[in-house]
Amino acid sequence: MEFFMPVTVYQEEECVIHHAKEIGSLGKRALIVTGRHSAKKNGSQADVEAALAKNGILFDLFDEIEENPSVETVMKAVKAGREAGDDFVIGIGGGSPMDAAKAIGMLIRHTDYTWEDLYRADADCSSVPLVLIPTTCGTGSEVTGASVLTRHDKKTKMSLPHKIFADLALLDGKYLAAAPESVLRNTAVDALGHMYESWINGNATEFSRMFVREGLRVWKQTKEVLLGKKKPEREDFDRMLLASCYAGMAIAHTGTAIPHGLSYILTYDLHMPHGAAIGYFQEGYLREADEKDRETLLALSGFRDLSELHDFYEAVCGKWEIPDSVMTRTYEAIASQEKRLAVPTFFCDREVLHRIAFGK
Amino acid sequence: MEFFMPVTVYQEEECVIHHAKEIGSLGKRALIVTGRHSAKKNGSQADVEAALAKNGILFDLFDEIEENPSVETVMKAVKAGREAGDDFVIGIGGGSPMDAAKAIGMLIRHTDYTWEDLYRADADCSSVPLVLIPTTCGTGSEVTGASVLTRHDKKTKMSLPHKIFADLALLDGKYLAAAPESVLRNTAVDALGHMYESWINGNATEFSRMFVREGLRVWKQTKEVLLGKKKPEREDFDRMLLASCYAGMAIAHTGTAIPHGLSYILTYDLHMPHGAAIGYFQEGYLREADEKDRETLLALSGFRDLSELHDFYEAVCGKWEIPDSVMTRTYEAIASQEKRLAVPTFFCDREVLHRIAFGK
Repeated sequence: MEFFMPVTVYQEEECVIHHAKEIGSLGKRALIVTGRHSAKKNGSQADVEAALAKNGILFDLFDEIEENPSVETVMKAVKAGREAGDDFVIGIGGGSPMDAAKAIGMLIRHTDYTWEDLYRADADCSSVPLVLIPTTCGTGSEVTGASVLTRHDKKTKMSLPHKIFADLALLDGKYLAAAPESVLRNTAVDALGHMYESWINGNATEFSRMFVREGLRVWKQTKEVLLGKKKPEREDFDRMLLASCYAGMAIAHTGTAIPHGLSYILTYDLHMPHGAAIGYFQEGYLREADEKDRETLLALSGFRDLSELHDFYEAVCGKWEIPDSVMTRTYEAIASQEKRLAVPTFFCDREVLHRIAFGK
Repeated sequence: MEFFMPVTVYQEEECVIHHAKEIGSLGKRALIVTGRHSAKKNGSQADVEAALAKNGILFDLFDEIEENPSVETVMKAVKAGREAGDDFVIGIGGGSPMDAAKAIGMLIRHTDYTWEDLYRADADCSSVPLVLIPTTCGTGSEVTGASVLTRHDKKTKMSLPHKIFADLALLDGKYLAAAPESVLRNTAVDALGHMYESWINGNATEFSRMFVREGLRVWKQTKEVLLGKKKPEREDFDRMLLASCYAGMAIAHTGTAIPHGLSYILTYDLHMPHGAAIGYFQEGYLREADEKDRETLLALSGFRDLSELHDFYEAVCGKWEIPDSVMTRTYEAIASQEKRLAVPTFFCDREVLHRIAFGK
C-alpha cells in the first residue's frame, strides 16, 4: 500500500495572507483562475491579490471558469496565461476552478501541448507551480490529482488520465460563510460520497481509511448545520472544509467508485448539482456493500440506518426524479466500463449496477 | 495548522523488490548506509542490492554506522560517498542508520560543507535523493525530517537544526522478524512515546492527532506480543512497523517533547536503549498532562490507568535505576532550555520538570 500526499496544506484564519510569502516564492507572475462571482463575493480573490501585492508579484486574472468547466474554457485560459508569461497558477473556488487550474497549469508548463494532450495518457503531466484555495466544502480537489472537465464533444464530463497535485492548498473557513446554503449542502454531500466511495473500494488501504475515519468524525459534526437545524458558526465552516480536505486525501489514494461514475451524465443532462448527483446513488451503493463496511460507515457518519441516510439526502439535496431515458444513458455508459465495475469491494456486474442506478 | 508529509511510503511484502524501479530512478550510483550486522541478518541489505542490480544501478556500501551514530562516523561515510561519486543514499536499519543517512545525504549534496554545517541553522539542508528502509519499529525516522547524532564534544546526542525528508520509505514487516525481542520491545515503546509527546504538545493539530489516533489504534494491537504473551506473526510485525510510521508522521508535525529531551543524556551516559530512556519518563509526562489528554491517550493505547502503563513499561523495558548524578545532569540540561519547557500543553517549569525527571 502507498501513502502519497505531496500537497502542503494550511488551514487557519487568514490563511492566504499568513502564507503570502510561500505563495510568492512559487513564481514571478501568477495566473489567477476562478469563476465570475464567488471569489469576489467571499473575499478570497481580494486576499490573493493582497498577498501577491505584498510580495510584489504580478498577476493576470482569468475569471471565466463556468460550473463543470469545458475544455474550451480551459484552452482560453491557457492562451491568456501563455501570452502573459505567467509562471504559476492560483485556482480559487469550488471543484470547477480548481480542476481547471490543474489542466491550465499543465498546458502552461508545456507550451507546445494542445487540448488533446490533456487526454493523452502518456503526456507529461507536470505543471507549473500550483496553489489551490477551496471556497466550497466538497470537491477536495485542493489535495487530489484529479481534474474533471466537460467534453461537449462527448456530452459528458471526463477525468483527465493524469494526476496533477497542487504545491500549496490554503484553507480558510471564512470563504464558506458567503456561499449559498445550497452550495454548502450539495458539496458536503459530495465530500460524504468521496469517503463512502473511498472506503468501499478495492484500492482502499489502512492509509486511505485513516483519512475516511478522520473525515467522517469531523463531517458528522456538521450534520445539524446541513439539515438547517443550527445556524453555522466559524467552527462549522472550518469543519466542513477540513472534512472535505480529508475526503480528498482519501480519494487521492483510492479514486472514486460507482456513484461518481453514474453522476456525470446526470450533471450534464439535468444540470443537477454534482453533490446531489453523487448523493442520489449513495444509499444504493451502501446497500450493495458488505454489511461490515456499511455498518462501519453509517456509524462513523452518524446514521442509524440506510433509511436515515435516505431522509438526510432528501432533506439536504432535495427530491430528485431522474427521467428513465437519462438514467438509462448513465447506466449504459458505466455498464460497459469493466474497470469501473471492478472498483467496489463487492461483486458488481450489470445487474448490481442496475439496482444502484434504478434503486431496484 | 499545517499538513506536510512529502515522503512517498510503501508498506507491503517484498516492498523493496516491488519498488526496485522507483529506487533506481533516483540516481546512478547509491551509497548504502547501514550498521554492521542487522541489515545482513534480516535480509534487507540483500534485497536492496538485488533491487539495484535489477536496474543496473551501482552502489557502495558503508556499513559502519554504530548505535547513536557520531558526527565522526557520518563524516567518514560522507568522505566515502563523495570519493565514489554516489548521487543518492539508501539508509537501512533503525534510527541510527536512517538519521545518519539524512546527514550524509545533505553533505554529499553540498560538497564544500564540513561537519560544522550540519549544525549551522542557516545551512542549505537539501539532500541528494534519499531512500529509507526501517528494520525496527520505533524511530519513525523514515517519515520525519529529524536527524539526531552523537556529539562526543558535548557528551550528548543533539538533533540537527534541519528537516531532511526521504523521497521514498519502504516498509516490509519481514525485516522485524530477525530483530532481537529486546529491540522490538524498546523501539515499540519509543513509538508510543512519539505519540504521547506529539499529542501532549503545544504544536499539536487536527492533522498531527489524526496520526496519533491511527497509530495508537494499530499499536494497541501489538501489546500482547510486546508483553511476551503471544508469539509474533507476520501481521504483528506489519502492525508494529505501521504504528511506528504513524508515530513518525505525528512527530514530523509537532516535534517531540519533554521525555525525548530528558532521554539523551541517559542514553549517552548509561547506554540505556533509546526506547527505554523515553519510556522511563512517559508515566510522569502523562501524570502532569491535563486529565482529558491523559484519559484519551490511555484509552487509545489500551491502558486502564497510569499504574498499568507503569507495569507495562517495567515488563517490556525492564526496571531501571538511574543514578542521581546522571538524572541531575539530564534535568539541568533540559531545565535551562526554555523552548523545550514551553512545548507541553500543560504549564511546565523547573518544578514540574523535576517531578517528571525524578518521579516525585
